[in-house]
Amino acid sequence: MSGTVHGVGLGPGSPDLMSVRADRLVRGARHVAYFRKAGRQGQARRIVEGMLRTDVVEFPMDYPVTTEIPLDDPRYAVSLAAFYHKSAGHLRGLAEAGEDVVVLCEGDPFFYGSFMHLHSRLTAHVPVQVVPAITGMSAAWTATGAPITWGDDVLTVAPATLPEDELSRRIAQTDALVVMKIGQNLAKLKRAIAAAGRMDAAWLVEYAAMPEQRVIPLAEAETAPYFSIAIIHGQGRRP
Amino acid sequence: MSGTVHGVGLGPGSPDLMSVRADRLVRGARHVAYFRKAGRQGQARRIVEGMLRTDVVEFPMDYPVTTEIPLDDPRYAVSLAAFYHKSAGHLRGLAEAGEDVVVLCEGDPFFYGSFMHLHSRLTAHVPVQVVPAITGMSAAWTATGAPITWGDDVLTVAPATLPEDELSRRIAQTDALVVMKIGQNLAKLKRAIAAAGRMDAAWLVEYAAMPEQRVIPLAEAETAPYFSIAIIHGQGRRP
Repeated sequence: MSGTVHGVGLGPGSPDLMSVRADRLVRGARHVAYFRKAGRQGQARRIVEGMLRTDVVEFPMDYPVTTEIPLDDPRYAVSLAAFYHKSAGHLRGLAEAGEDVVVLCEGDPFFYGSFMHLHSRLTAHVPVQVVPAITGMSAAWTATGAPITWGDDVLTVAPATLPEDELSRRIAQTDALVVMKIGQNLAKLKRAIAAAGRMDAAWLVEYAAMPEQRVIPLAEAETAPYFSIAIIHGQGRRP
Repeated sequence: MSGTVHGVGLGPGSPDLMSVRADRLVRGARHVAYFRKAGRQGQARRIVEGMLRTDVVEFPMDYPVTTEIPLDDPRYAVSLAAFYHKSAGHLRGLAEAGEDVVVLCEGDPFFYGSFMHLHSRLTAHVPVQVVPAITGMSAAWTATGAPITWGDDVLTVAPATLPEDELSRRIAQTDALVVMKIGQNLAKLKRAIAAAGRMDAAWLVEYAAMPEQRVIPLAEAETAPYFSIAIIHGQGRRP
């Protein structure tokens, strides 16, 4: 009897924004795995601090690279592919030995998540179950205190890693906007939003749903931590 | 001392996909309010069946119209505005009398939610807190068994209420797609997706995260229940 690999979304960061299903799976898990930057505890592991069984077996998966190599360098893909292959192999071995494994995932596992790279390597071999979760962007628009979409609003979710002209064009053409993956792309994003004529409506949310949460006008942002999301609210129909 | 109005997102439909925070607020609430179509139990109320206090006071808010009047008919806006004004007035009265109220919200309250129309009428007068939730679209892409966005994918969320040519243009220009509010717009949506050349990649998810959940190729759909979401997966970078 094979065990199951559970990709469990933990949500945006606050432990009580985890789903009841995720909470139950995390607390009951004998095996947990999670990604982290080498030398760090990692956000996923941090969220579940104090929730794990005393006899839990942890399997940290340390990214071989994060921002040291550009995303478009072939060495980046080669290095990551080998890492995901090896990590998936370990989880597959546990499942084939009859063990269930909970993979702790920041945010929602199928929305720009690292778990997806394990899922695609596991799903043909062992049972895989995914628990959706509150996205970081939901926590971000909630933090602004205003709805993101009304009526017939179109929402565009774009990564700040896109070329500046494409970013700007998409920002000009949407009603509501969420920008992920800001980090080193903040200056480019600010230029793209300004070129689209929408700087006055843009907000930067840092650490949404975490103790350090902060909401500022994007125009005032000089740096953006990894957990930053930019927001422009839709202004659609409202009776 | 004023009470607080809590807009509590319940998520896509399965009670254990509610957040731990929402679960706690729902179970502890003395006053709950929820929208419903007149004569129906309502999806929000259905999700919390069996969870409410025995001494709970329920305040159902029956929509005066749903699909009987077109959205662009001025009577629609007038009727809804009066309804939201009156409903918000009742909740404000409870809060001013010192009572906390939990407003049960399907999905995420700030993402195309009816609660937004109460929030905008209450927030200047009494404390309002919003609990984000798992969106119906997260449950929908999870139901398909495949990630929605990879790498630099752009995600467009569009309501099927848009004009057909605008829908088609936006579908042609995005990597990943989510379409909400399908219902009576299914035939138009299918034409728009076909015109964009993407019918082969499109899925219809009915009742995501509910017992009746069903995933079918959009091309095969002949009707779409209210709880339907169309999905096209992004195909972005994956090492």
